[in-house]
Amino acid sequence: MSLPPEGTRYAHASESAARVRAVNTLRALFSSWGYTHVEVPVLEHFDPAHPVAERSFKLTGPDGELLALRSDYTFALAKLVRFNHADAQGTLRLQYSGGLWRTVVPDIARTREFTQVGLELVGVSGARADAELIHLAREAVRAVGLAPRVEVGNPGFVRQLFDLAELTPGLQDLAADAIDRKDQATLQGLLEPLGLAPDLQRALLGVPDLYGDSGTLRAARQLAPWPEAVAACDHLEAVLTEFEDSSELLLDLGMARRLSYYTGVTFRAYTFDFGQPLLGGGRYDGALLPLAAGFAIGLERLLSALPGVTGDAPPIAVSLEDVPARRLRRAGYCVERALTDDVDELRAYAQARDIPYLLLEGGLEPLTPERPEFEQLLSLLGREHA
Amino acid sequence: MSLPPEGTRYAHASESAARVRAVNTLRALFSSWGYTHVEVPVLEHFDPAHPVAERSFKLTGPDGELLALRSDYTFALAKLVRFNHADAQGTLRLQYSGGLWRTVVPDIARTREFTQVGLELVGVSGARADAELIHLAREAVRAVGLAPRVEVGNPGFVRQLFDLAELTPGLQDLAADAIDRKDQATLQGLLEPLGLAPDLQRALLGVPDLYGDSGTLRAARQLAPWPEAVAACDHLEAVLTEFEDSSELLLDLGMARRLSYYTGVTFRAYTFDFGQPLLGGGRYDGALLPLAAGFAIGLERLLSALPGVTGDAPPIAVSLEDVPARRLRRAGYCVERALTDDVDELRAYAQARDIPYLLLEGGLEPLTPERPEFEQLLSLLGREHA
Repeated sequence: MSLPPEGTRYAHASESAARVRAVNTLRALFSSWGYTHVEVPVLEHFDPAHPVAERSFKLTGPDGELLALRSDYTFALAKLVRFNHADAQGTLRLQYSGGLWRTVVPDIARTREFTQVGLELVGVSGARADAELIHLAREAVRAVGLAPRVEVGNPGFVRQLFDLAELTPGLQDLAADAIDRKDQATLQGLLEPLGLAPDLQRALLGVPDLYGDSGTLRAARQLAPWPEAVAACDHLEAVLTEFEDSSELLLDLGMARRLSYYTGVTFRAYTFDFGQPLLGGGRYDGALLPLAAGFAIGLERLLSALPGVTGDAPPIAVSLEDVPARRLRRAGYCVERALTDDVDELRAYAQARDIPYLLLEGGLEPLTPERPEFEQLLSLLGREHA
Repeated sequence: MSLPPEGTRYAHASESAARVRAVNTLRALFSSWGYTHVEVPVLEHFDPAHPVAERSFKLTGPDGELLALRSDYTFALAKLVRFNHADAQGTLRLQYSGGLWRTVVPDIARTREFTQVGLELVGVSGARADAELIHLAREAVRAVGLAPRVEVGNPGFVRQLFDLAELTPGLQDLAADAIDRKDQATLQGLLEPLGLAPDLQRALLGVPDLYGDSGTLRAARQLAPWPEAVAACDHLEAVLTEFEDSSELLLDLGMARRLSYYTGVTFRAYTFDFGQPLLGGGRYDGALLPLAAGFAIGLERLLSALPGVTGDAPPIAVSLEDVPARRLRRAGYCVERALTDDVDELRAYAQARDIPYLLLEGGLEPLTPERPEFEQLLSLLGREHA
């Protein structure tokens, strides 16, 4: 007997039920906003240009072709869109859910097989589109029962400062990382040797503090009054205007990771008392498709943020009587059919598994006293089984 | 741009929605009978003893270990049971749904990536257990909206005849295949040279006709009055006794494929006007686990048997007003949020996509006359948006 392979795992009753519930909840939310569910293959042609090509599982197909396991949904959906909708005009709203495989997943410790649920809004750009995604990111967290907090940024702001400071790409990565972690000491160490103009140096060092409600935008415009930085602030303001209620949104002008990938707003959703982001997304116009933005939820992380994972309702009864059992199942109860007709054996079986009732020819027999649903069950069963 | 790999495919809006609905319907049915959902990894250790090892996709993991993609649920679940429930006493009811990968799938033409939904009843044997599975196989077909017909056999019947005839394993396979196809000519050609006793020869040649309602058992006992053959009939009779209503069940004493794997009843479910089985299963005590039986539904085939595959409800409206839009979504309608505030543009967009209403500040604007739900929408929206 051996463990499942490194980075893979079994999901048992309660966890599996919670996963199914979360996926169905998210799917219903996204569907009600017009996002249609699509499925893409797990087996893909290996593509060296794939953004996570190096970390994908590669294999040889039966015809000798080099294949890879799906490792990124955005890339796979972009292929689907180019393949099927090349002639389609306008907007596509797509949602997906399923497994991804990566040989190393740095931010999801030791997990090689994991699940994402997400959506893509394709063929449109602008504040309304961005706001719709940010709203759905927030509602997704709320829908599974968590209190959301969504951090929204616009990497265009930091990019302008980096351009003005003429940072090398290597230095950009280091500085973006320091800003993202709000590590001002490292940032200062990186910038000091460059001899930047004082206002630019002050702006760069001030970015980690540009964090909070819409007042942040005023501070940002004062600190960085250069056209593209101001335009980035204007866009964020236009996005905020779309919200009836922006109370769970926080602006973070320092959100600057993956600068070369994201071309517009980026966002991450959190919940309280849970440090890691539950989802991340943003606009990547031109990266894989001309106009597109989306976000992806890590299902395993989302579930680990839930305070308690409960399974489906356990069986309410073990039954020797098919007709009344069917009546209870139709009312939403789980009823096991007896696998023996020896009533003593059945009673022992039910008690060992905390199943509170037997359903016998004579009627409903409670095995534990004073259960709250007893009267309801009797009325469902009708007079002949009460 | 390239096609997805051979044997894989995209599933778009309506098909994907129908898949999700079917999986959820089956899951709810099985849950109401006490089957808990479990998930097993897609990445498995390669095991040369795996029943479909030769047809599995193999790959090398990041640590140099030989892996395979999941190619059989029963085998994977048996591993899970041995791994997690070695000390568990008694019955386990498990259900699953997900993808399988095989380099060649002879009975599902050219499909290398496919989906199964199924269940396993572990740790118990006997007529009650078998009847529960056969009943759920029948109800599974009915639950997705098809008229079921379940063929039930017991390979013990044919096995006794083969033993008495001392058929070689090679000849057993050929004869079982001929019986399964009801190909009496081939069967006669196989048996003729053996010089069997007349009653045994008559019994073997008669097996393909042992097909029908419970009267079949009487004919079978007369034709093959040997103890194990009679015991096989007795067991089938005991299984039938468990049914309130056995009208959609058909006995087939010639169901004899995979004789070395199945140890008790076997069954396949069909629907009318669709030649291929929608699901198959049976008892395999001792094959992978001491006591176990189950069945698996091929989801792609099940969907292809459905008369029409419909997607989720299309959007009822495009909305510039968030509050009333939310009200309609809560009532189960799909409402797109407008991606422009130019009402003329919006009207053109909605008309191009057959979306029947605009939801504007002034209220609900029908784009097509006389829709049946108009009054209901107005009452959901309340006076201020009517």
